Amino acid sequence: MAAPLLSRPVRVGILTGGGDCPGLNAVIRAAVRKGERVYGDEMIGFLDAWDGVRDRRTTPLSIDSMRGMLPRGGTVLGTRRGSPFDTPDGVDHVKQTISDLGLDGLIVIGGNGSLSIACRLHSEHGLPILGVPKTIDNDIEGTDLTFGFTTAVQIATDAIDRLHTTAESHDRVMLVEVMGRHTGWIATHAGIAGGATAVLIPEIPFDVEELCGRLIRRHDRGRFASIVVVAEGAEPIAGTLEMGEKIYDRFGHVVLGGIATRVAHAIGDRTGFETRVVQLGHVQRGGTPTAFDRVLSTRFGVAAIDAVHDEQWGKMTVLKGEQIELEDLTVAVGQTRTVDRELFDGVAAHFFA
Amino acid sequence: MAAPLLSRPVRVGILTGGGDCPGLNAVIRAAVRKGERVYGDEMIGFLDAWDGVRDRRTTPLSIDSMRGMLPRGGTVLGTRRGSPFDTPDGVDHVKQTISDLGLDGLIVIGGNGSLSIACRLHSEHGLPILGVPKTIDNDIEGTDLTFGFTTAVQIATDAIDRLHTTAESHDRVMLVEVMGRHTGWIATHAGIAGGATAVLIPEIPFDVEELCGRLIRRHDRGRFASIVVVAEGAEPIAGTLEMGEKIYDRFGHVVLGGIATRVAHAIGDRTGFETRVVQLGHVQRGGTPTAFDRVLSTRFGVAAIDAVHDEQWGKMTVLKGEQIELEDLTVAVGQTRTVDRELFDGVAAHFFA
Amino acid sequence: MAAPLLSRPVRVGILTGGGDCPGLNAVIRAAVRKGERVYGDEMIGFLDAWDGVRDRRTTPLSIDSMRGMLPRGGTVLGTRRGSPFDTPDGVDHVKQTISDLGLDGLIVIGGNGSLSIACRLHSEHGLPILGVPKTIDNDIEGTDLTFGFTTAVQIATDAIDRLHTTAESHDRVMLVEVMGRHTGWIATHAGIAGGATAVLIPEIPFDVEELCGRLIRRHDRGRFASIVVVAEGAEPIAGTLEMGEKIYDRFGHVVLGGIATRVAHAIGDRTGFETRVVQLGHVQRGGTPTAFDRVLSTRFGVAAIDAVHDEQWGKMTVLKGEQIELEDLTVAVGQTRTVDRELFDGVAAHFFA
Amino acid sequence: MAAPLLSRPVRVGILTGGGDCPGLNAVIRAAVRKGERVYGDEMIGFLDAWDGVRDRRTTPLSIDSMRGMLPRGGTVLGTRRGSPFDTPDGVDHVKQTISDLGLDGLIVIGGNGSLSIACRLHSEHGLPILGVPKTIDNDIEGTDLTFGFTTAVQIATDAIDRLHTTAESHDRVMLVEVMGRHTGWIATHAGIAGGATAVLIPEIPFDVEELCGRLIRRHDRGRFASIVVVAEGAEPIAGTLEMGEKIYDRFGHVVLGGIATRVAHAIGDRTGFETRVVQLGHVQRGGTPTAFDRVLSTRFGVAAIDAVHDEQWGKMTVLKGEQIELEDLTVAVGQTRTVDRELFDGVAAHFFA
Repeated sequence: MAAPLLSRPVRVGILTGGGDCPGLNAVIRAAVRKGERVYGDEMIGFLDAWDGVRDRRTTPLSIDSMRGMLPRGGTVLGTRRGSPFDTPDGVDHVKQTISDLGLDGLIVIGGNGSLSIACRLHSEHGLPILGVPKTIDNDIEGTDLTFGFTTAVQIATDAIDRLHTTAESHDRVMLVEVMGRHTGWIATHAGIAGGATAVLIPEIPFDVEELCGRLIRRHDRGRFASIVVVAEGAEPIAGTLEMGEKIYDRFGHVVLGGIATRVAHAIGDRTGFETRVVQLGHVQRGGTPTAFDRVLSTRFGVAAIDAVHDEQWGKMTVLKGEQIELEDLTVAVGQTRTVDRELFDGVAAHFFA
Repeated sequence: MAAPLLSRPVRVGILTGGGDCPGLNAVIRAAVRKGERVYGDEMIGFLDAWDGVRDRRTTPLSIDSMRGMLPRGGTVLGTRRGSPFDTPDGVDHVKQTISDLGLDGLIVIGGNGSLSIACRLHSEHGLPILGVPKTIDNDIEGTDLTFGFTTAVQIATDAIDRLHTTAESHDRVMLVEVMGRHTGWIATHAGIAGGATAVLIPEIPFDVEELCGRLIRRHDRGRFASIVVVAEGAEPIAGTLEMGEKIYDRFGHVVLGGIATRVAHAIGDRTGFETRVVQLGHVQRGGTPTAFDRVLSTRFGVAAIDAVHDEQWGKMTVLKGEQIELEDLTVAVGQTRTVDRELFDGVAAHFFA
Repeated sequence: MAAPLLSRPVRVGILTGGGDCPGLNAVIRAAVRKGERVYGDEMIGFLDAWDGVRDRRTTPLSIDSMRGMLPRGGTVLGTRRGSPFDTPDGVDHVKQTISDLGLDGLIVIGGNGSLSIACRLHSEHGLPILGVPKTIDNDIEGTDLTFGFTTAVQIATDAIDRLHTTAESHDRVMLVEVMGRHTGWIATHAGIAGGATAVLIPEIPFDVEELCGRLIRRHDRGRFASIVVVAEGAEPIAGTLEMGEKIYDRFGHVVLGGIATRVAHAIGDRTGFETRVVQLGHVQRGGTPTAFDRVLSTRFGVAAIDAVHDEQWGKMTVLKGEQIELEDLTVAVGQTRTVDRELFDGVAAHFFA
Repeated sequence: MAAPLLSRPVRVGILTGGGDCPGLNAVIRAAVRKGERVYGDEMIGFLDAWDGVRDRRTTPLSIDSMRGMLPRGGTVLGTRRGSPFDTPDGVDHVKQTISDLGLDGLIVIGGNGSLSIACRLHSEHGLPILGVPKTIDNDIEGTDLTFGFTTAVQIATDAIDRLHTTAESHDRVMLVEVMGRHTGWIATHAGIAGGATAVLIPEIPFDVEELCGRLIRRHDRGRFASIVVVAEGAEPIAGTLEMGEKIYDRFGHVVLGGIATRVAHAIGDRTGFETRVVQLGHVQRGGTPTAFDRVLSTRFGVAAIDAVHDEQWGKMTVLKGEQIELEDLTVAVGQTRTVDRELFDGVAAHFFA
């Protein structure tokens, strides 16, 4: 590695944005450990994402303060969904905070939303910002994998393992709704790993008649129990599934009539098979990361602080094959990385038959 | 142990009734292993509970056929909820099957419903029936614990562990709905083990205002994240919680508007705190049993086949302290074992403050 | 519950002695929570067991300081194996510390050794001491179960589950050495739960010829893979197993030639079967407690602080059936609770055939 | 995908060689499912690796026979370490078996040894062989990852998580010996994921003085507990660690005096710190695969049967980034893929300081 441009110790701010995700603390810890130990850096955490930047709510980050945080889910910094672009003077607040706190740069760990904010702050306002992609959904362009994803898949797979025996004992069709509003990465991987009969993902509108046909043929072969994995964002082919309206709560989340419940009723109506629904919900995003995600998070954290010293502003850390590299934030912005069709068609499609 | 009355090898039928439960296969395996190896018995499994007795759908059970079944959730025999008392000639079918298959007795592994059937078949019709209590809800009278319960509690606790970090990252009140239509055993144990802020159980109608007051006081002390465990059968004090109607599916299950969702909305309305709901659902009853439940199931299976040889008809296996004993089936019938108030009041109440 | 004698707030010291055990922190947390919240008590932790009492190394304990400690293994107070009776003025140091710190009593959480010390300090020196029994080995007289035990059994069972498939793939006899120097509780429970072929425990000297005969008969039936669970304190019948000397490290632990390794070689020599040994070691006593152990620990902690207010000096908390009670410390002293022979002979013996 | 050359149904043999590994059954299941369902193939399993080929011990493989095998560790086909090149007529036996059974090809799932055999059988004898790389050690050239590796790392990390609390409670240095005779992949990943203080790997001879210095400096900073992860094949720098001879059992395995035990004694002698050793052993290779490994295994199995129909003899399935590709078997033969030094030096080295 070439000598970093900023070989002097720096002051760096860190924030975590968007939904929480296993591995966030491991990223922070890694950046802080390498920063403090190798470069002599000073690290400052902003609480509650951009809210903390605006309000200057900060916490000092050190090797000591991050001790024991590697296996811990969530984020010690807290997270919110707001943006400095929500208010006219939001960006000025960010600039002023960076200036007043004497920060050399800001590490933004976040999903599509946070990375877009980071990208604009860098490209439109010239701020020294470095991104670390974060989503359990694995749908960020530019990186092979995001941390938190294998944890979510493992939790969903563990649940499916458990549901197999109850499905078989009662000859039921169990529908398991997993996270994935825009993409079916979790559903596809958990479906393959859990030995599902069918997987419904947002990328491919589903045909409920075809699904019922598959379940019936399976039934005719003496296989009375089935697991159907449904990404929360899966949609029927237009016109193929008449269902009641979904009901939303104050936060815009579907609380009643999630897609799995609607599909369960459609299956029950058409086949007469007993169905049950399990919505895994927030359990998928909490708790300790898998070993895989801890390693990936740690590598991202190390790469982030290295990149700060290389003044690679406007970039984000990514995984390419086995290597950690840097990509322009613009690669991620406005893009959604959909499920690999070679994976789905070549593997999943035959398995879910 | 005194010499068993039926020291000759016997032919025994086994069935599993009611909802599935981790440990059912371990009970069957234990009875079969001791029966075949020690007594030379012949064991016959009835498929799908009483349906299989009526229709004579059976499968031979042997040490070989039960190999590998100890850690496996569900029941290899399948289970249904029907009863021979549902039809006029149901009991005659049972008698005829026992007679035609030359059975010396029938081991019925089931919950309150199945044990009531077993009790009537023995007391009213003199059939040679031995019960093994089964419920993940732990609400059967006469036994200190039922197998499957510690598994359900462990699964719920693991989920709560995961939800703590997401609750803290987002300053949310997370409501976790666990099984327990009539009793709060799972909720109470998982609530204590998971460090919940509040636990709502069917035995004690809850006051949503009091609950909100507790969350607000907690908030005022700087504790912005809370976990509330809600048994699915918890009920508000009459008149304290105005909520929309629940919606039932064709199987009589609440699919929309479960109690946790309703409480979440009530909390949100009264406090403005962000709330989220997780319904653990069927994940709690599937999959491999805890080591504790495997041991208890195995002991019940051994005690059941021993009791058959002692002709202890009309009894069921129970745990008393550390010992396995036999109790009259009548002890369990029509009773529900509610949560120990000394446990709840002495321990839980102070912890949930 | 009758009104406690010490209804005024008290100052209480707490220490943890002996080997660490999952659930220690949960006991401390529970005593502190109820003490602080209900009684207004002040709780002081002594570091490193009796060393901390001698040296007055203390840490204040509060609801805040114990936050997040419920699921955490080990003990925040640290632990050592020394005793105030090791030195002539040791007891005087204890008395002086209690007096100088103005303590109303001392809660001692520990195993046979610590409880004996506690008992003597109370009975011979009149000190106000309350015990909480602790051992993963489950071998303390007076209580049905000790916390940490189900955790150790679960960890051992999970390992056995994993070893089954590798044993079967390679047609091997796998020997799993588990904790238990004086008693075979962990070995017996994990052996039953894991479906072992044989279990060797300290209570019953084993006959290696008989064991090999059993493995050979099993082999002849086409079962080429076996799991043998060996408690670390298991001993051969005198004269039946010629083996080299064990080698001890500086701490008195057998590091080379543990019993499982010696049995493995004996089996290999006599049968020619391929054998492998796994010593689970310290993994069994670390890490997060099972839900069951968290509940038991919490109940013990609550009962301990209640007992302090009832001035039940010289007693310890115990589990009897489903109830928490108090027993004289003398019940535990000098006793070892050996494996229930009805459990071992009635259940295990037939299963391990 | 271009139309496969062998669009007709084929007859394919499958064997698993070398040590067992989580995911073997998932590979077989996937090849069988796609082969039977999509191509109409007939699949034959050889028992106990090359022994079964020689002795024509086979088992038919079908979707039905492989049902439930996805989550199951080990291999239903059994495995042995022998080679057809061990005997003069071994290769002829293989040819004759392939001919007599009318096999179109043979899928060999195995490690360096089995893949070398496969390579020679193809290159020297022209046999139609397709390889699938398998090793928990992750040290096969040509593929980014091998299945079983993330499972082994997860198991080791779970153990390290547990050991942290016991190390801290007793102020101990815990040495954890993990698999890895030639490479330190498991040690490095588990060390990063588990937050180890030091990791000793075969690729970098270690200096015990330097290690002790690091532990002492850590001790001086008030950090009394440390975890040191030791790959079983780690070696001291020549002359830096005087230790007694290792003792081998009949199978050539070190049973007494493994490297972790020797390092523990060296640390104890030089620092006086209390040390303990845990050898994770075979637990690392047994049991259910992680979700990640199940997906990778499934993809390899699908790719293998596709490659058979493409007549890609002499190739093996590999993972490159996110894609499954084919590589010449020669790439793997005689090579060992050592730990990525950028990973170790850039990440691990700073963390283990």
